[in-house]
Amino acid sequence: MVITYEEELHLVKGILTAADFPEEDAALIAEVITHSDFTGVQSHGLSRLTRYMRQIKAGSLNPRPNFRKVLDTGAVMVFDGDNGSGIASLCKAYGETLGRARQFGIAMSTGRRNANIGCGSYYGWRAAEDNMLALVCCNTYAFTSPLGGADRLIGTNPIVVGVPAGQEYPMVLDMSTTNVAMGKIQAAEREGQMIPDTWAKDYDGNPTTDPSKAFSLSPIAAHKGYGLAVMVDVLSTMLSGACFGTDIGLFSRLEKENTGFCLIMIDPSKFMPLEEFKAEVDRYVRMMKGSRKAPGTEEIFVPGEIEYRKMQVMKKSGFEVSEKLAAELTELSVTLDVVPEGTDFPGLVNRLN
Amino acid sequence: MVITYEEELHLVKGILTAADFPEEDAALIAEVITHSDFTGVQSHGLSRLTRYMRQIKAGSLNPRPNFRKVLDTGAVMVFDGDNGSGIASLCKAYGETLGRARQFGIAMSTGRRNANIGCGSYYGWRAAEDNMLALVCCNTYAFTSPLGGADRLIGTNPIVVGVPAGQEYPMVLDMSTTNVAMGKIQAAEREGQMIPDTWAKDYDGNPTTDPSKAFSLSPIAAHKGYGLAVMVDVLSTMLSGACFGTDIGLFSRLEKENTGFCLIMIDPSKFMPLEEFKAEVDRYVRMMKGSRKAPGTEEIFVPGEIEYRKMQVMKKSGFEVSEKLAAELTELSVTLDVVPEGTDFPGLVNRLN
Repeated sequence: MVITYEEELHLVKGILTAADFPEEDAALIAEVITHSDFTGVQSHGLSRLTRYMRQIKAGSLNPRPNFRKVLDTGAVMVFDGDNGSGIASLCKAYGETLGRARQFGIAMSTGRRNANIGCGSYYGWRAAEDNMLALVCCNTYAFTSPLGGADRLIGTNPIVVGVPAGQEYPMVLDMSTTNVAMGKIQAAEREGQMIPDTWAKDYDGNPTTDPSKAFSLSPIAAHKGYGLAVMVDVLSTMLSGACFGTDIGLFSRLEKENTGFCLIMIDPSKFMPLEEFKAEVDRYVRMMKGSRKAPGTEEIFVPGEIEYRKMQVMKKSGFEVSEKLAAELTELSVTLDVVPEGTDFPGLVNRLN
Repeated sequence: MVITYEEELHLVKGILTAADFPEEDAALIAEVITHSDFTGVQSHGLSRLTRYMRQIKAGSLNPRPNFRKVLDTGAVMVFDGDNGSGIASLCKAYGETLGRARQFGIAMSTGRRNANIGCGSYYGWRAAEDNMLALVCCNTYAFTSPLGGADRLIGTNPIVVGVPAGQEYPMVLDMSTTNVAMGKIQAAEREGQMIPDTWAKDYDGNPTTDPSKAFSLSPIAAHKGYGLAVMVDVLSTMLSGACFGTDIGLFSRLEKENTGFCLIMIDPSKFMPLEEFKAEVDRYVRMMKGSRKAPGTEEIFVPGEIEYRKMQVMKKSGFEVSEKLAAELTELSVTLDVVPEGTDFPGLVNRLN
């Protein structure tokens, strides 16, 4: 079945509110989850809700955290997430950092004791909409080894950069520092398929093509991806007091993630008139897209363009919820007794049944 | 023949001073060039001097630029390099940014109209020695295409991150966003060897194994490396007013590089007591190095460790100058009439003859 953007927002908000998240946090998280599904990143969309509920039940995710600022020197701040949703924490840190970046030209926030920040590109897009440049990174459950190692000590450690444009689409990079995510390997395993030997290594650290033996994810570009992941660890954890390495919770045991994030925001209007900056970004985008094409290329895209255009299409067509996901959500809604009355929530749970 | 660290410093300074660089700039550039050779990055060491001289002769490198600050809002600054050495420009910008980072916790400088910044890791190490975190990036002559494209519009766009440690080696990442540099392909061509098809594409945008047909360099990790390179362009050029894409000079014609850099510096002591931060970096380094090893791995390294240890060894053993390079330098010294008197310069030019 197909749901609209508004329907998904209300569904997620309803489920999260029923699961004891405060209204404000539920709305923030709903926006990021819906953004994820509507940009085609379904791994971080509705499919995450069941995981969140399991985390809450296991005590590893706090729906009503005492989110607080623990350090503030003006241009730099540190936030403690009290083991709440990393999405809600980062959205709130974002708001404060935005004001500081407008004041100083550049500002930075880090966060500790947070669960996953969700779909990274959201923050890049939001910054672009706010006419700001943003660099976001975070560490995650440790699924990767140091180069040449076999222990899992490093996360998939994504890097996000958002850049506002004028008439062109904003440019948003959202990349993990591993070749693939663990979910892609698990999907191959479910479907009985082999995996390329560049995706993961087995328990002993040997490249493997057997998804059931995949233990640690391989970094992009060998020492370069490893190096980027290490620097994401430094920025996200060491400047925030978040956990790294063996101190990170174990995903398989639903332990507290205790991960950290780092957000650096830059106000381009401090460097030049904003319209001038945006015109330069437009010129850059057109220059890239106007390049001679390699054989087999129909169109050249700039970072984030494919997702942006997908969003435009999907906001009209709606998001096709798979039968499996619909069943999962129905179960969640029934368990949580999510009631559609009193919201714009258009009987979606009934339709899902 | 073998030269010591001090000898190389004096040799480079002597050559640059004779080539009309001011004493201060010559000393800064000598330090970065010597660092490069003594960390094993010979592509950015003494071998660059002949290129610089050719650039000066062609009018594309200004040895006596009017380096100036064109914008200063406190935490962010912009510098104009007047087509001088990017090394001298970045070193001077570094000094000012350091003070601002100590004041605000985070500070940022960009630079425009600069030639190459030289060996990137130098700035990461210097920041580590100054107990600062630094992120440095710059665009370069355009040798890369947008993903799916065939025109050369993007540089090798390196990313550098430096992190101070306590008792362990500092961590310094210095990576280009392409799989290899053009120099490596030219070396393969000189030696009559084929290249892997992941290194470069031909004029039409097809992967090639023939180094003589290599036209554009392939980015690391496909869309991820392309995306990183684009963001380096944004930070280095659009916030500084430097050139990008088709506006960058052509290396083959010795045109002005007109490239830009971006330096973001973070003072960890604003987040926690410095010793506490450094102890955490040490703990991180030990955790990585203490990982179980994959088969074939003798030791696990953190970013920059190999180069750091190479420097320690080479500072004792000296740097082995190849016959070809010695001949090149001799010619330069004779042409420029570099006189050793009045410095510690120990008759090196005579020894080179």
